[in-house]
Amino acid sequence: MSTEHLTLHTDKYQINMMYAHWYHGTLNRKAVFEAYFRKLPFGNGYAVFAGLERIVRYLQELHFNEADIAYLASQEEGYDPAFLEELRRFRFTGNLWCVPEGTVVFPNEPLLRVEATVFEAQLIETALLNFLNFQTLIATKASRIRQVAPHDVLMEFGSRRAQEADAAIWGARAAYIAGFDATSNLRAGQMFGIPTKGTHAHAWVQVHDSEEQAFERYASALPHQVTLLVDTYDTLASGVTHAIEVAKALEKQGRRMQAIRLDSGDLAYLSKAARRMLDEAGLSYVKIVASNDLDENIILDLKAQGARIDSWGIGTQLITAADNPSLGGVYKLVARERIGGDSRGYEPVIKISGNPEKVTTPGIKDVYRIINRKTGWAEADYVALEEETEIGQDGVLELFDPVHPYLRKRVEDFEAVKLLQPVFRDGRLARELPGLDEIREYHRSQLALLRQEYLRKLHPEIYLVTPSPRTWRLKMDMIRRHLGHTGEWRP
Amino acid sequence: MSTEHLTLHTDKYQINMMYAHWYHGTLNRKAVFEAYFRKLPFGNGYAVFAGLERIVRYLQELHFNEADIAYLASQEEGYDPAFLEELRRFRFTGNLWCVPEGTVVFPNEPLLRVEATVFEAQLIETALLNFLNFQTLIATKASRIRQVAPHDVLMEFGSRRAQEADAAIWGARAAYIAGFDATSNLRAGQMFGIPTKGTHAHAWVQVHDSEEQAFERYASALPHQVTLLVDTYDTLASGVTHAIEVAKALEKQGRRMQAIRLDSGDLAYLSKAARRMLDEAGLSYVKIVASNDLDENIILDLKAQGARIDSWGIGTQLITAADNPSLGGVYKLVARERIGGDSRGYEPVIKISGNPEKVTTPGIKDVYRIINRKTGWAEADYVALEEETEIGQDGVLELFDPVHPYLRKRVEDFEAVKLLQPVFRDGRLARELPGLDEIREYHRSQLALLRQEYLRKLHPEIYLVTPSPRTWRLKMDMIRRHLGHTGEWRP
Repeated sequence: MSTEHLTLHTDKYQINMMYAHWYHGTLNRKAVFEAYFRKLPFGNGYAVFAGLERIVRYLQELHFNEADIAYLASQEEGYDPAFLEELRRFRFTGNLWCVPEGTVVFPNEPLLRVEATVFEAQLIETALLNFLNFQTLIATKASRIRQVAPHDVLMEFGSRRAQEADAAIWGARAAYIAGFDATSNLRAGQMFGIPTKGTHAHAWVQVHDSEEQAFERYASALPHQVTLLVDTYDTLASGVTHAIEVAKALEKQGRRMQAIRLDSGDLAYLSKAARRMLDEAGLSYVKIVASNDLDENIILDLKAQGARIDSWGIGTQLITAADNPSLGGVYKLVARERIGGDSRGYEPVIKISGNPEKVTTPGIKDVYRIINRKTGWAEADYVALEEETEIGQDGVLELFDPVHPYLRKRVEDFEAVKLLQPVFRDGRLARELPGLDEIREYHRSQLALLRQEYLRKLHPEIYLVTPSPRTWRLKMDMIRRHLGHTGEWRP
Repeated sequence: MSTEHLTLHTDKYQINMMYAHWYHGTLNRKAVFEAYFRKLPFGNGYAVFAGLERIVRYLQELHFNEADIAYLASQEEGYDPAFLEELRRFRFTGNLWCVPEGTVVFPNEPLLRVEATVFEAQLIETALLNFLNFQTLIATKASRIRQVAPHDVLMEFGSRRAQEADAAIWGARAAYIAGFDATSNLRAGQMFGIPTKGTHAHAWVQVHDSEEQAFERYASALPHQVTLLVDTYDTLASGVTHAIEVAKALEKQGRRMQAIRLDSGDLAYLSKAARRMLDEAGLSYVKIVASNDLDENIILDLKAQGARIDSWGIGTQLITAADNPSLGGVYKLVARERIGGDSRGYEPVIKISGNPEKVTTPGIKDVYRIINRKTGWAEADYVALEEETEIGQDGVLELFDPVHPYLRKRVEDFEAVKLLQPVFRDGRLARELPGLDEIREYHRSQLALLRQEYLRKLHPEIYLVTPSPRTWRLKMDMIRRHLGHTGEWRP
C-alpha cells in the first residue's frame, strides 16, 4: 500500500556515528538498546502502547537506494566512498523484542529492545521513537476519552487539524486500537480496515437554495444513512425542525433517519432541546451526534449536565493530543558486546546526567506484569535483568520503589507475565503480527487487569513499576564507578 | 521523490457530498471556497503562511486509482458504479489563489481561495487544511524562536518527537522558511535541500571504554566537524575537560574543534562554566550548542541569565508546537454559481452559527496589505470583495474594525498590495513556485514591514484586519436575511 521510502527518516548524527564506527572498524560490534518513556502523558495512570506494525514495516523495507547514497555523498562530511558501499549492503539483521500493541504500559519499563550491530541499531533510533512516541500518545489520549464514554459511539474526526498526513492515518489507527469505533479518514480506512464514517458539511447546506432542499437532497441520495448537520443557520428553529420534516418523509418510504449532528453552540442545551423535539415528533430512534473541539474533559462535563448525545466526533484534541502533544520516549544503550568475549557476551553501560530522571538503568532487561492469581488484578510491573529467569520461583515477590521506598508491596500467589515478545530474529519476522481487531480485543483484556483506581482520568493511583534488587544494585554500582559516590547530585 | 498517493487523504463526508451532488446532477456547479484561521496561535502577533508547495504537489497528483475505486465500492454507502466511473475521470481542473509561502498573515483574512466545481472543491478541503494548518503553525512557532535569538544558529532537532514522519519533514521545511538554519532530519535535507546538522549521541560515548576514547575516535573519523556531546557522565569534570584535550590535540594537527554540546542540567550555569574553561584553555573559537526541551521562553530566560550559548538545537517544543499544537484553519464556501446565469456569475453564501466567531464572511474576497509609503510600515490588511478593484484610488482609506469600532485608522499615502496570487488556472500551474531560499528571503522582507510592536513575543499589538464597507454590509444583509435581525445572538 505505502511505497514511501523512509531510510533517511533519521537524524544526521546517526549517520555520523555509523561513519565513525565504520572508520574505526567497530561497525559490527553488537549493542542492546531499550526504548521507554519517563513520564505518563495527560496525568493519566497508564499509557497504551502502539506503533509496532509501523516499526515492523519500516524495518522490513529498510535499505539505502541510489538517491540516498547520492545525497549522502553530497554532504560536507565527506563520507568515504567505501562507507557508502557499506550502506548499499545495509539491511536490518538484528533482533527486536517489543510489548504487543494494545498493552497497557508505564514509565521506566522497556517497551522495546533492539539487539543488533551498533551500525544498525543506531540508524533506526529516530524512526522507532518517532513511530512509537506518536502512536502510543494518541492511543493513550483515545483511551482517556473511551473511559468517560464507555458506551457511546466514538469517531475520530481530526484529519484537517492533524500534524500532517501520516499523523492523520496512524493517529486514526492508534485511536481505533484504544477503543474508538470509526474514523473519518478514508486513507486510514483503506490501509487498516478501520470503519469510516461521514455525514455532510455546512457547505452542503450553503450550496443549496434552502436548508430544506439541502436536507431532502442528501437524504434522497444516501437514504440508508442520513445524518443531517443542523447548525448552518439556526440549530433549533431551522436545522432540527427541517431534519424532523425529512425524518417524517423518510418514514413514509419505510426508512429511518440515523441522526442529527450538532457542531457549534451550547451542546448541553441544544442536545437536550433537540432530543425533546425529536422525541415529541416520535423520532426517539434518531440519534444525536456532537462535534466541536471535544475532549474527555468536555465530554464528562456535558454528561454531568445531562447532555443527550449518543455519538461523539472528536478531532483536534485527540489527533494532536492537544494538552500534551508529545510522549518523551527515549532509546538508550543498555549493554555493549564485550570485546574478545564470546558472541553473546555483553557488558552493561549507563548514562549519568545532571537531570536525575535522565540517568539510565543499565543492563539487558525484561519486564513482567505481576498478576494476583486470587483477584486477577495486576499488582505491579517488575523490571529484571534478562538473565534473571527465576522470577518468583519461590512464590513470593517483594516489590519496592527504590526512589520512594514507602511504595512497596509483597505478593504471594501471582503469575509473572513477560511483556517483551520476540518480533524479529536475525532480521526476520519471528511471528505474524496480530490483526487490528485482535489488538483491540487484547487491549480490552489489558485494561481489565487494572483496578478502577488506576484507570480514572484525574489523579489516578500510581501503578508500581519496580526494579529487581539485582537491577537496582547494578545501577548503583555503575553510578558509583563513574562518580565515585551515589549519594548526591552535583549540578 | 515522494510517491505517496493521497487521494483518499480526505474525510468520508467529502465523498458522500460528492456522491449526493453526482446523484442530483449538480456536481459541476461552480463554487468558491476560502481558507482562513480565526485565532493566532501562541498569543503571537502574526502567523507565517506555509504549506503551498505541498498543496500544489497534491493537486497535481490528485486522481483515483483502481485501489481507491475498489475501496470505495466496498463501502456500506453503496455508491452507484456510474459515480465510481466519474471518479476515474477526476482531475483538479479549477483555479487556486494563495498568499505566497513566507507571507506574514493574520486572522480572518483569506489565505487561499479555490474556484472549482463543487465536486472538486469538496474533495480537496481536508488535505488543503491539513497541510496549511500544520506548516503555518510550525513556521509561526519557528518565527517566535527566531525573534528571541536573531543572531544565533537555530537547528530543528525534533524528528523523534514529531507527530509521525510527515510532520518531521514538512515541519523542518516550515521552520527553515521562518529562519531556522538547519535540520537534523536527512529526509528533509534530501527532499528540500535544507542544510542538515548532526553530532553524536550519548550512545557513542557509552559504547566506548571511556569518554576520552569516544571523543578521540569521533574526532579522528570526522575531523572537519567535531562537535562533542559532553554530558554523558559529568558535564564539567569529565565531558568539557575531555573535550578540551581533544581540541588541543586537534590544534596540533592544524584543526579546530567546532563546538561542545550540552544536553541536560542547568544550561545557564553549565554554559557559563564551560565557556570559562574553554576560554582559559585558549579555545575561544569553540562554540557551545545547547539542547533539551528548549523553546522561545526558555531561550529568552537563558539569555537573561547570561548563558553563553551560540547555537540551539530545538526539538519537541518546535516540531509539535507544544504550547498550541494546532492551527484552526477552516475552508468555507463563500459563493456558489448562480443557476441559469452566465458561467462567471456567483452569488454569495453565509454560514451562521451559535458561536459568533464561526459566522462566515460571504462573497469572493481579496486581501490587500496597506503599506504606508512614507514609513514603509504595513498599517493594516484590508479585506474587500474581489469586484472592488478601486481600492484607495482616491488616495484615502478608512480602516475600521466593525466588532471593536474603537480600532480604526485613516491612511493616506499608501500602497495596497494584493496578497492572493494565482497558483492554478483551469487546473494548470499558473507560475513556477519559488525555491526555498527565495521564500526565506521573501519572508524576511515580510517581517520588515511590521513594526516591532507587532513582532514581540508577549502581548503584541493587535494588527488591524478590516473589511471593506461593502464586505461588511453584505455580511450584515445576509445575517438579517437568514435570522430576520442582526442585533443579537440566540443561544
